[in-house]
Amino acid sequence: MQALHIIKIGGNVIDNSENLHRFLKDFTALKGCKILVHGGGKVATQIGESMGIEAQMVDGRRITDIDTLRIVTMVYGGLINKNIVAQLQRYGTNAIGLTGADGDFIRAKKRPVKTIDYGFVGDLFEGSINPENLSKLLDGGFTPVFCALTHDGEGQMLNTNADTIASALAVALSGRYETTLIYCFEKKGVLMDINDEDSLIREIDPERYEKLKMEKVIHSGMLPKLDNAFTAISCGVKAVIIGHSNDLGQLENKKGFGTRLSK
Amino acid sequence: MQALHIIKIGGNVIDNSENLHRFLKDFTALKGCKILVHGGGKVATQIGESMGIEAQMVDGRRITDIDTLRIVTMVYGGLINKNIVAQLQRYGTNAIGLTGADGDFIRAKKRPVKTIDYGFVGDLFEGSINPENLSKLLDGGFTPVFCALTHDGEGQMLNTNADTIASALAVALSGRYETTLIYCFEKKGVLMDINDEDSLIREIDPERYEKLKMEKVIHSGMLPKLDNAFTAISCGVKAVIIGHSNDLGQLENKKGFGTRLSK
Repeated sequence: MQALHIIKIGGNVIDNSENLHRFLKDFTALKGCKILVHGGGKVATQIGESMGIEAQMVDGRRITDIDTLRIVTMVYGGLINKNIVAQLQRYGTNAIGLTGADGDFIRAKKRPVKTIDYGFVGDLFEGSINPENLSKLLDGGFTPVFCALTHDGEGQMLNTNADTIASALAVALSGRYETTLIYCFEKKGVLMDINDEDSLIREIDPERYEKLKMEKVIHSGMLPKLDNAFTAISCGVKAVIIGHSNDLGQLENKKGFGTRLSK
Repeated sequence: MQALHIIKIGGNVIDNSENLHRFLKDFTALKGCKILVHGGGKVATQIGESMGIEAQMVDGRRITDIDTLRIVTMVYGGLINKNIVAQLQRYGTNAIGLTGADGDFIRAKKRPVKTIDYGFVGDLFEGSINPENLSKLLDGGFTPVFCALTHDGEGQMLNTNADTIASALAVALSGRYETTLIYCFEKKGVLMDINDEDSLIREIDPERYEKLKMEKVIHSGMLPKLDNAFTAISCGVKAVIIGHSNDLGQLENKKGFGTRLSK
């Protein structure tokens, strides 16, 4: 099977022009098939504010009302996505910028209203991803660049978590490609001591993960990320790597990049 | 050769939800390969105003300064494009929303500053279109939906006239497909009497066109549109049809739709 890298970046890359360009050059240098998934960054909030639309929070969670959906469709799907694509083209990656509606690649279901109405937020389900359509792009030499938007198949765009999209893509494509999922964030990887970037753990397998959890070494904020990563691995993803976007260039000198989670 | 329809719509479709849905249903019913090209509509101006950014006009022409480019990238490439894609998916067209940067499909050159600095406006050139990459999408069963944005290959997005994009796509793809270019506008087609929608001219060939021009039958505003159409035809496009978006459903009952220009 051909190798496929799926890489997710968030605000710490998107909001910082220097980090972004460094990352996009390193991304371009990565050989083989690849997919980029990007989150939002601060610009959506700034543009919303300049239009007089304030972020609505309920219990610390952002609500996607109809005005917010319009803004994220503009900013994620237009401004951020197309600027990343234009930069990647400049560096030599034949990028193609997408939402889940394009090519019917990612469908979601509007989150049901229980205690909180999250508005136009879409949750993925079994069969959300269309791997057949996606592999037409990959095999055609294109590099898909997904923003955090999906659709419901009935004409409604939905706001969907970018981490979840990256992980679902990796699982769905692991039947066709040898898939590695890479989460870029603001730390070097999983650290033994959260305040010491030199305490990076290079590799974690499920056995070591259980041990680290028992010893309470892993910071509680990392637990859901790692649980999701091991779920992806148990569903066929070859490895999940968590590291800093600035270090992606070290990926191909073996153990040089982040924390590698695998079976 | 396989048939390909390239259809351009403008503000009169995009700004009117009823017209848009009618058009998208008729577009979906069209058999074979197709490409949609859409202009901007009023929403870009409205959103610019709500952000305190006013349209800048010089000699009656809109200038694309850096703020305006950000707005059109958001609105054309994000809001309008993705909503059209989501609606087309709902009706059963496997649409994929694009700018010229995506897939490196359309490159342009920033217009040189002479007496007026148009800002980030891109003009097409010989070789602007990448028909090989585009035919991978068409042959993969996707329906490309282009907005009026291109790139320069150096990381810069550019604002480019949608009519020009549609015509350049038609010419560039006419070596691979039997290409018909359709311009939807707010009239039934070319009229003998501009005030009488019943005076529609069904067919014009170059000979009749010369005669109609000599007789000054054709409204001066139509002349550049028709000149461009006959240029496209002389470059290999099979036919150019000009008609009202609401009538597209009549295209397949032969002479039922608009004015057909051909050799």
